[in-house]
Amino acid sequence: MPELRRDPVVGRWVIISIERGKRPADFGAGLTVKKGGFCPFCKGNEHTTPPEIMAFRPDGSRPNTSGWTLRVVPNKFPALQIEGHLDKSGEGIYDKINGVGAHEVIIESPEHQDTLARMPLKAVEDMLWAYYYRISDLKKDKRFKYVVVFKNEGDAAGASLEHSHSQLIALPIVPKQVIEEIDGAKRYYELKERCIFCDIIRQELASQTRVISENRDFIAIAPFAARSPFETWILPQKHESNFAPNGNFTMLAEILQRTMKQIDKTLDTPPYNMMLHISTFMDEVNDYYHWHLEIMPKLTKIAGFEWGSGFYINPTPPEEAAKFLREAKI
Amino acid sequence: MPELRRDPVVGRWVIISIERGKRPADFGAGLTVKKGGFCPFCKGNEHTTPPEIMAFRPDGSRPNTSGWTLRVVPNKFPALQIEGHLDKSGEGIYDKINGVGAHEVIIESPEHQDTLARMPLKAVEDMLWAYYYRISDLKKDKRFKYVVVFKNEGDAAGASLEHSHSQLIALPIVPKQVIEEIDGAKRYYELKERCIFCDIIRQELASQTRVISENRDFIAIAPFAARSPFETWILPQKHESNFAPNGNFTMLAEILQRTMKQIDKTLDTPPYNMMLHISTFMDEVNDYYHWHLEIMPKLTKIAGFEWGSGFYINPTPPEEAAKFLREAKI
Repeated sequence: MPELRRDPVVGRWVIISIERGKRPADFGAGLTVKKGGFCPFCKGNEHTTPPEIMAFRPDGSRPNTSGWTLRVVPNKFPALQIEGHLDKSGEGIYDKINGVGAHEVIIESPEHQDTLARMPLKAVEDMLWAYYYRISDLKKDKRFKYVVVFKNEGDAAGASLEHSHSQLIALPIVPKQVIEEIDGAKRYYELKERCIFCDIIRQELASQTRVISENRDFIAIAPFAARSPFETWILPQKHESNFAPNGNFTMLAEILQRTMKQIDKTLDTPPYNMMLHISTFMDEVNDYYHWHLEIMPKLTKIAGFEWGSGFYINPTPPEEAAKFLREAKI
Repeated sequence: MPELRRDPVVGRWVIISIERGKRPADFGAGLTVKKGGFCPFCKGNEHTTPPEIMAFRPDGSRPNTSGWTLRVVPNKFPALQIEGHLDKSGEGIYDKINGVGAHEVIIESPEHQDTLARMPLKAVEDMLWAYYYRISDLKKDKRFKYVVVFKNEGDAAGASLEHSHSQLIALPIVPKQVIEEIDGAKRYYELKERCIFCDIIRQELASQTRVISENRDFIAIAPFAARSPFETWILPQKHESNFAPNGNFTMLAEILQRTMKQIDKTLDTPPYNMMLHISTFMDEVNDYYHWHLEIMPKLTKIAGFEWGSGFYINPTPPEEAAKFLREAKI
């Protein structure tokens, strides 16, 4: 079983693969994404993935056969293992937890060439429903405290398969970085009795310089302190502490797909990472945290300065990035 | 002038290049390291860098001519600018500082093909002296609070030139990540009245499973919660809060070069980042912080899970990494 280990100085957790550790020869320099060739996520290849956890099958077809529009399957090479009780232990000065968790893959479309920008809007909406259903289900497992939902697109962004998919990892602890973000929002609320993200939205709407787009319910902005060029956040305009459908996910799907079209057009379909930021399972409804999506096109490299300081150097001011994206002819 | 901007929620700072921002077409997918071709860091090309700040010239040659064994020059494309007063200001909810700082390049050898593993031991020692002299000098500038010393080797690790060099960036604020590390050490000291790094060294020496090598004054270990495969830390065995020569840098140069030879042999000369972790200018001599070097071979990619959680997934247990490095035939 993998191990969660905590750095004793800074409290940062890492997941260490214990059993089948990678040896020096396993680290190739080349592409990890298989181009062309066999794809386990394509329709017709359902038998090559672990059995599905859920699927959307408008034609009523049987599980693990063709006919689906979206499938959720366990990751074949999970970072954490779903079976087992939580076991926290020490090793002298160090702390560790056995690597219990869920690691699932959301296959967003049966078509290999689909992307968030190109798939039917309905498929984007369905992806968001799948996020919601899986989070709701994993929340019932008392071993888990948080779920990280994310999407890697392209080799440089860490995707190991080309076929468009998202992933989620349910964790037995709340990541330090999530705690920091929530605590930051809480401190602001204690001071002002207002949600800091609501205040950010108000200020961005007033200045307009970093607004990329809006629809009835959502806003897409280039954040003031963007870590990387063309970093984009999508937030609900009204305060919502946790990710949930407001009747449906149509408005969110619309602005997300529009944003991805703008990014693809402006940056020639770059690799990117997308992360869902939500409240913890223990504290889902609150006045201070505001869920959102963060999209980071992968255009720069993390180097020694970033590792050594936690600073980022962003060569594109978010005001200019927002302008480029806003004016993209999609 | 560049701007330092703070994320209002998590307090993370970023450096935003304001004037000559990168436009979408500036982000090429290809290599950024020029292979072959003209190298501004090679001997004979001294006139193509900004005038040198310091150099080691055993033959007594004139500044900015050949004859040097090590040169320090301002970065031609600095992330921060050296001129100007500090100016902190607000923009509604947001905080920013004008981008005052120093950004210098330490050219470690006149020979293009040298690496830390291959250059004369004396050159590694001289590099460490240059770190020390430049830190000591920048400390006198009251605008600066911390200096990040780092080295990027190889395109994947963010190096923009092939010729072996280190960099330093002096900052008008102490990075949040540095504060967290120092505060973590301080909390442990308050509890135990012992330095946490000294305790780590004691435990590692007792178990030996993660020790890579030792010499009279230093120890190289694979840290218990290594973020990436083959991550290696080099620490002074006796408590030292700040980076300084103990008479000389011979022992440190020896273990650093040995470690780099082990890494190059085991992983076929991988790209890597090296970071110097030191105390802040304000609090150099203390009982709780223990300076060290961190070396991270660049073998895995930062993806959505890492961005969303601050967790790292390390596919190689540090115990195995230490064994491979220990047994490398160098």
